[in-house]
Amino acid sequence: MPNGTNQAWTMASRPTGEPTPEHFAITESPIPEPKHGEVLIRTLYMSLDPYMRGRMRSGPSYSTPLEIGDVMTGEVVARVEQSESPLFEVGDTVRASIGWQEWAAIGAHIAKPVDPDLGSISTAVGILGMPGMTAYFGLLDVLKPRAGDTLVVSAASGAVGAVVGQIGKINGCFVIGIAGSDEKCKYTVKELDFDAAINYKTQNVSEELARLSPNGIDCYFDNVGGPISDAVFENLALKSRVAICGQISQYNASTPPQGPRNLATLIRTRTTVEGFLVYDFELQHEIARARISNWIKEGTIKYKEDIVDGFENAPEAFIGLLKGKNFGKLLVRVSE
Amino acid sequence: MPNGTNQAWTMASRPTGEPTPEHFAITESPIPEPKHGEVLIRTLYMSLDPYMRGRMRSGPSYSTPLEIGDVMTGEVVARVEQSESPLFEVGDTVRASIGWQEWAAIGAHIAKPVDPDLGSISTAVGILGMPGMTAYFGLLDVLKPRAGDTLVVSAASGAVGAVVGQIGKINGCFVIGIAGSDEKCKYTVKELDFDAAINYKTQNVSEELARLSPNGIDCYFDNVGGPISDAVFENLALKSRVAICGQISQYNASTPPQGPRNLATLIRTRTTVEGFLVYDFELQHEIARARISNWIKEGTIKYKEDIVDGFENAPEAFIGLLKGKNFGKLLVRVSE
Repeated sequence: MPNGTNQAWTMASRPTGEPTPEHFAITESPIPEPKHGEVLIRTLYMSLDPYMRGRMRSGPSYSTPLEIGDVMTGEVVARVEQSESPLFEVGDTVRASIGWQEWAAIGAHIAKPVDPDLGSISTAVGILGMPGMTAYFGLLDVLKPRAGDTLVVSAASGAVGAVVGQIGKINGCFVIGIAGSDEKCKYTVKELDFDAAINYKTQNVSEELARLSPNGIDCYFDNVGGPISDAVFENLALKSRVAICGQISQYNASTPPQGPRNLATLIRTRTTVEGFLVYDFELQHEIARARISNWIKEGTIKYKEDIVDGFENAPEAFIGLLKGKNFGKLLVRVSE
Repeated sequence: MPNGTNQAWTMASRPTGEPTPEHFAITESPIPEPKHGEVLIRTLYMSLDPYMRGRMRSGPSYSTPLEIGDVMTGEVVARVEQSESPLFEVGDTVRASIGWQEWAAIGAHIAKPVDPDLGSISTAVGILGMPGMTAYFGLLDVLKPRAGDTLVVSAASGAVGAVVGQIGKINGCFVIGIAGSDEKCKYTVKELDFDAAINYKTQNVSEELARLSPNGIDCYFDNVGGPISDAVFENLALKSRVAICGQISQYNASTPPQGPRNLATLIRTRTTVEGFLVYDFELQHEIARARISNWIKEGTIKYKEDIVDGFENAPEAFIGLLKGKNFGKLLVRVSE
């Protein structure tokens, strides 16, 4: 049994706008001892995702909010260091929602096995994990695209958006990505084979969408909300579908920001707008995981990871994520 | 063949906010002569509906906008005064989209027969016409309520809302109406058997909804948009549905008014928001018409008409409609 210290990042105070380093505090405790039926795990990769900002907020959500002093929410890829359960052996790789911390002793039934044959273990919290599942089900089960549909995805080079666009291409869609730099736009078109990309920081999104999709947008996978979504709503096709996956442009706001009321648009175009959560499709995750793994092995789907080294750098990386500074799925490498 | 003058109301200028009498002008022309295959019809009842404000606007819509000098859009119930077609005889009652005018000669195939056995002929442009069909399909085909669902309907005593709520009751819903006066609220509860009603002018809609639907709102039939809809969005249940039928609170605005961006709510509640038009369900209108007619005859469904006498009073009545001054389906009686 390892001796030593476990570090964890907690929420030191509740941010009202953009989080800053003071909203996070590192705490130390002894590495825990697993009880009967538990495993002791050590974090290898920690996933940082936009939804975590929502947990730092009080008020109604799909999940219980963090209280001051709670360990920041999150899923990690970890190695089993000690097992008091027949379910796992030392050396197994698992993923588990233990939050931003280095070590944890958890019930073995809560740890999910990671199959290294499916792909690099870091992808268990990336393209083969929550972000990949979000893309797969939000696209295929909510938007239900048909070959020939024009599909627009915001945050197009991100952990979710990049997968949405590529699965859209596999399904025969004309895919337009929206991203925040020329480099990200170029990546989606040159590397991921999107048909077009729009840099929302330098281009007029509505005009570009009108030019690129003269018959209107059939499917919009919305990761961002705000003015980018307003521009998409102006260009929807008849019987179009919008999947509300995330609203990262709104997450730092303490009250809902104001924007144009555009629900009347939905009457004209008979559009359906649907909010969803990846957990709504949990029964089918294994099927999707196997399918995406095959696409990666075939070379049909690519992915990009933005790996930050060092547990101590998690808050800074997370703050950057909310500003779109990452390029690809953001991970913190905690140990080798 | 009648000799005399046909009067018509035209759009004299395009309103940018609330329409006023100056935006309408009356024109006179000889009563037309029907050609072969046509019928000459004389308006009995003219329907006034909120959508007409949309036609006075330029810019994208589901329908071609009116130009200055065009006869105001609208459907009427009329009597065949002369027939040059085997389809109709003199004395038949029809409905037709001839706009705000007293007489018209139209192709007989464009006139729709009105069956007086289904109900009072005025209902052909009311509960058995476009507003009734809108209610029926928006509720049953878009919202798809289940017995036990909480259904909220705005503009609850109006031509559409009153029907929505009553069909909701037939389908076993707990029905909450939102209306603009105590008299209208009382009417929906005492006469139409709604379970509850909220006066949005005197009550806090969000608080009342929270009190009346502690488990959240499953179905929202939205006729109004704006702050009333914001209050409903705050109280949606898991897997709720919102049908966007109308946005009367927005119709006088020249650009979309600002409001809180609340699409993130849809993620938490996995809500579906869908815009629709009554014409999308045209193939099934006859079935719905027969069904509503039976409900009226059985006494299961009631309706209320707000009849303004005199063709000359149409603009004033229409301006009042946009302010919620009517109580029940607004009609102009043009001739006996």
